Amino acid sequence: MQGIIFADFEQASAAVLSFLRERFGFDLWMVTRTEGDDWIVLQREDHGYGIAPGTVLRWADSFCSQMVQGRGPLIAPDSNRVAAYADAPIARQVHIGAYAGYPLRRADGSLFGTLCGIHPAPQPDALIQEEPLFILLGSLLSSLLDAELRAHEEGRRADHARAESMTDFMTELYNRRGWEQLLAAEEDRCRRYGHPAVALVVDLDGLKRVNDQHGHAAGDALIRRTAEALRRAIRAGDVLARLGGDEFGILGIECSRSEGEALLARVRQILHELALPASVGLAPREPAQGLLAAWKSADQAMYADKRARQSAN
Amino acid sequence: MQGIIFADFEQASAAVLSFLRERFGFDLWMVTRTEGDDWIVLQREDHGYGIAPGTVLRWADSFCSQMVQGRGPLIAPDSNRVAAYADAPIARQVHIGAYAGYPLRRADGSLFGTLCGIHPAPQPDALIQEEPLFILLGSLLSSLLDAELRAHEEGRRADHARAESMTDFMTELYNRRGWEQLLAAEEDRCRRYGHPAVALVVDLDGLKRVNDQHGHAAGDALIRRTAEALRRAIRAGDVLARLGGDEFGILGIECSRSEGEALLARVRQILHELALPASVGLAPREPAQGLLAAWKSADQAMYADKRARQSAN
Repeated sequence: MQGIIFADFEQASAAVLSFLRERFGFDLWMVTRTEGDDWIVLQREDHGYGIAPGTVLRWADSFCSQMVQGRGPLIAPDSNRVAAYADAPIARQVHIGAYAGYPLRRADGSLFGTLCGIHPAPQPDALIQEEPLFILLGSLLSSLLDAELRAHEEGRRADHARAESMTDFMTELYNRRGWEQLLAAEEDRCRRYGHPAVALVVDLDGLKRVNDQHGHAAGDALIRRTAEALRRAIRAGDVLARLGGDEFGILGIECSRSEGEALLARVRQILHELALPASVGLAPREPAQGLLAAWKSADQAMYADKRARQSAN
Repeated sequence: MQGIIFADFEQASAAVLSFLRERFGFDLWMVTRTEGDDWIVLQREDHGYGIAPGTVLRWADSFCSQMVQGRGPLIAPDSNRVAAYADAPIARQVHIGAYAGYPLRRADGSLFGTLCGIHPAPQPDALIQEEPLFILLGSLLSSLLDAELRAHEEGRRADHARAESMTDFMTELYNRRGWEQLLAAEEDRCRRYGHPAVALVVDLDGLKRVNDQHGHAAGDALIRRTAEALRRAIRAGDVLARLGGDEFGILGIECSRSEGEALLARVRQILHELALPASVGLAPREPAQGLLAAWKSADQAMYADKRARQSAN
């Protein structure tokens, strides 16, 4: 198949450095990053200088910092003839006869780093004729870097929004959307591996009365307290969601019938200790019916519990 | 400031085409897209062929389709000496003596289009020495295109997830998160421009009883019916949200006190017609207090309505 594509900025940089080595014949080509006064070598094509990726140099000492400020040309076949380069501190540490450098920028104009090369001996002046090619390659690398970082930024924004879309704003538990997605995903695993699981439904008894008598702010506080209590009751790995106004769901993951009973007892105990009256229902997943049916059964068990509690009062 | 960056694939392509024209001296350079059997010219640097962007040619007729299949070289200084090119139907429509082409691919290997150039007269064989440069430029363009399309895709995914994160799963109305964000944004506009606005709170009376007597499925259906009714009551541009289990909020945008009263009457009327018993409260935004206070006042008015309805029964 004709036509390659670089997987990322790193691969593309490596190809550009290797091409520049062929075309310009310098001993060292680098892609660098500036970070305050640190000048970090990200990648290099090295044929004699012994510079490793990750090397940190002083940005202020470099030819590149002079070049970026416009004090020296992009390509200097004899860098000792350029005052800004001849005077740069790095020239006293490293032997440089020829230099080429180009800034790598983000779309907002901010400096990311540089594409640059050095050679111990001065080079013929004809090298300057390659400036349009060098500028084009540097600009293409800048653009690729920026597009790639933008893709990552948008990806993070998408991940964050996706997490938010599955979260209840008030309690930071999973919301109904999150619950249904996680239930479906776990049902898939249960079917495949035969894991046991239980569904538990918790329904606050007093929310309506609190809302009606003390206002929604008091009702909201009650919901948050309940969420906190249930968070303490579940095991690590279990799913806890707010399914409706006063209704919570717990998905006990890899949870046997007896572990489910223990979970239920813990939920009851904590709600009782915190004086949070609620009706509770539990149902284990039956392999023939699945988790959706277990959720429905847990809901019915919760209502049975509610009726029993009401007739007891 | 040293260092340019191309705004996008389009700008980068234009720079590459213009550079190739300088370096190779062909009369026509193009960036193309393949779409089924359509071969679409996206951009061109034209010095004699008269091909406009947007021109659609037949992909199967092209040199590029032969090149992509590996039947001809990337660079053919004398294309008549390559059978696949000499036999291609396009050679009978357009005068081609020299050809260069490279596939533009997505990261998954799929073909997007090509970077290519033609010239009426054959060129010196030395042109083939520029193949590494041509491949590098084509691959960099491919990578830039792919990163840019990926950034767009992630952006769309983020926008979609963000919309979902503000939406109630069950009713597809705004959820509490969406409500609070839109309330804050509208408060900002009201403060700046002095727009009037009203807050309206609707609280279902019967949900708890329906849930307890008929199960959550019946309760869910009641909530969806109410959402539908309220959707019909509001004006285009108003914000309608599900704020809690049985509580809805309406934000009347650029809505005067009297328009707010009319909105309230419409809400009551529709709920009554559909036999959806609910308590309703309205409060206009007072410029000194803002929308958050109006929401609180509407909540209190709703509870006053509830108490009045209860004592009336």
